[in-house]
Amino acid sequence: MPILRQDPLTGEWVIIATERARRPETFASKVEEREAPPPRVDSCPFCPGNEHQTPSEVLVYRKNGKNSEGAGKGVGELYLDDTDWDVRVIPNKFPALERDPNAPRKMPSSRCELFLSHQGYGVHEVIIETPWHNRHLAELSVREVEMVLRSFQERTKALARDVQLRYVQIFRNHKKEAGASIEHPHCQLLALSYIPPLLNKEYARSHDFYLEEGRCLLCSLIEMEEASGQRVVLQNDRYIAYIPFAAPLPFSAIIAPREHYSSLEVSPAGWEKDLAPLLKRFLGILAEKLEDPPYNFYLHVAPLRTPPLAYFHWHLEIIPKLTVVAGWEMATGTFINVTRPEEAADYLRMPRKEMAGALKS
Amino acid sequence: MPILRQDPLTGEWVIIATERARRPETFASKVEEREAPPPRVDSCPFCPGNEHQTPSEVLVYRKNGKNSEGAGKGVGELYLDDTDWDVRVIPNKFPALERDPNAPRKMPSSRCELFLSHQGYGVHEVIIETPWHNRHLAELSVREVEMVLRSFQERTKALARDVQLRYVQIFRNHKKEAGASIEHPHCQLLALSYIPPLLNKEYARSHDFYLEEGRCLLCSLIEMEEASGQRVVLQNDRYIAYIPFAAPLPFSAIIAPREHYSSLEVSPAGWEKDLAPLLKRFLGILAEKLEDPPYNFYLHVAPLRTPPLAYFHWHLEIIPKLTVVAGWEMATGTFINVTRPEEAADYLRMPRKEMAGALKS
Repeated sequence: MPILRQDPLTGEWVIIATERARRPETFASKVEEREAPPPRVDSCPFCPGNEHQTPSEVLVYRKNGKNSEGAGKGVGELYLDDTDWDVRVIPNKFPALERDPNAPRKMPSSRCELFLSHQGYGVHEVIIETPWHNRHLAELSVREVEMVLRSFQERTKALARDVQLRYVQIFRNHKKEAGASIEHPHCQLLALSYIPPLLNKEYARSHDFYLEEGRCLLCSLIEMEEASGQRVVLQNDRYIAYIPFAAPLPFSAIIAPREHYSSLEVSPAGWEKDLAPLLKRFLGILAEKLEDPPYNFYLHVAPLRTPPLAYFHWHLEIIPKLTVVAGWEMATGTFINVTRPEEAADYLRMPRKEMAGALKS
Repeated sequence: MPILRQDPLTGEWVIIATERARRPETFASKVEEREAPPPRVDSCPFCPGNEHQTPSEVLVYRKNGKNSEGAGKGVGELYLDDTDWDVRVIPNKFPALERDPNAPRKMPSSRCELFLSHQGYGVHEVIIETPWHNRHLAELSVREVEMVLRSFQERTKALARDVQLRYVQIFRNHKKEAGASIEHPHCQLLALSYIPPLLNKEYARSHDFYLEEGRCLLCSLIEMEEASGQRVVLQNDRYIAYIPFAAPLPFSAIIAPREHYSSLEVSPAGWEKDLAPLLKRFLGILAEKLEDPPYNFYLHVAPLRTPPLAYFHWHLEIIPKLTVVAGWEMATGTFINVTRPEEAADYLRMPRKEMAGALKS
């Protein structure tokens, strides 16, 4: 029988439709076959050598010592080894929001005004994760992933100085099918003058729980996930990756620090050290077991400039794009998940050897 | 400069990103080219002659007089003219929800329970709109569209007799890219034991507005849309189709009765007469001007068995799938619309002749 499960973080009910269940291995991505891209693409504005085609960096991590080992490598690779940056953060050339000092600070609010509008105030940046056109996060070194994560924190802290900004939303679209219009590996950052509604919902739920139970909702969830283990995919000393109890879509996952931190702003130095290998490994598992599916990931954190919050716990959500979000989801704002979260976790944990067997059978 | 607009029905802010604006004609659908399907497909369970492959009808509209004019038609078309039904409503063979008399009636509710689940109770039906495999709503006769609409009302009224059901969600997915897994033209109906969150949000906003202003929010919006005319696409005596002020995505539209009715249940006999030609025409315009894009549409109505509600006004929302819903939307629950609603309406209103000119320039 179909089961409804409530997402403890948002309060929404998800239909787990076992009658239409699909075996995990049937999800292997149905993405249009494309040739593997080369390490550098002349026409790509994010590739080394084309830095002048983008706005100037707001943050750049330069290589300490240039690596000039090039024996046996092609021209593109030689060039990439000579590139003097690891991560570049630049303003988006086609921003969804801009920072106009004359923009009114407060969003108008009224229950009865029919047509309320507001000058969009905000910042839209692109985090170019690597000089390599063809290396995604799962293929970078742990040190390189660390740098990408560090840039999230550094840009958040820098943007927090603008008191008109209330929230920084960092997200990643992997592949065209998941909304990436430029192939070169990158994340996006949108800094907003308001709190997005899904965050408001999570804050409110977490706050209610805290008032009633005296502890953090996500701390409690992580503890229970660790105790049962059935939905945990990966874990190390400081982070956990699991398929949540009411995952909205097949294989959607949460990665969170096991210790309580409400945002990147208040996370201690070195916070990214244990996250980088876990994130790299999790994305590697997705790529390996679901044939490199398109996906989105995004961070949910406390509002900007908020001191450590006892009730909110930052986390990263990863949503592989394996099914089409359609009329039902648009109409209701809820989801039908055709794969039980426990089965999804089992499948992602399965050693490669057994998996080959499962696929054959 | 980018502009934020508040959706008066939901209260959410939409970013209208003029900096990344795309001219309406650049949206012409980028759907994989497929051969036009034939009028009947042997392997299609919804095609005439395969009725035994589906569960029995819960509602069927039979043809009054068989039309046997077949001169000059192919075998498939002859067969279709001989089919004795116009619309068939059947239980979904792979239901997302089922009606188990032993299912607990009330959804559990708690702010502090971590893992709440509930046996899914509900009904999942498919409305086969026509015997023709290759004729979508825009291509049916007005009389045939009327029958499809009438089936929405008739099934809603029938399901309302089950007091465990609280809401009927009717929706349509057009084309694979918008979630249609079967090509044969059909809608879906899900009857639920709870109110979906987007509906709750619309009810609450409309209710607040009613208490403060003493009138219906959507009645007020329609009046203002009619007065300005700038976002109206089509209108007849009883219905209006317009691009809302804060359309979440390019060309998303609302069709609503100009007179106040809160649901199909309480709509008077003949309610579908003026809607059928307007809906047919609107979908025809989308197909003509945006190269038959994938789309979703869905109804938003009052809860089941609710007497006429002064504060809520039923409507149909149509969302062409022209852009990819990606990390931003998943992260925040809000949208970035790259086409100003006024321009979208202009483009859809433009006579074909001028359009050809606009496309050339």
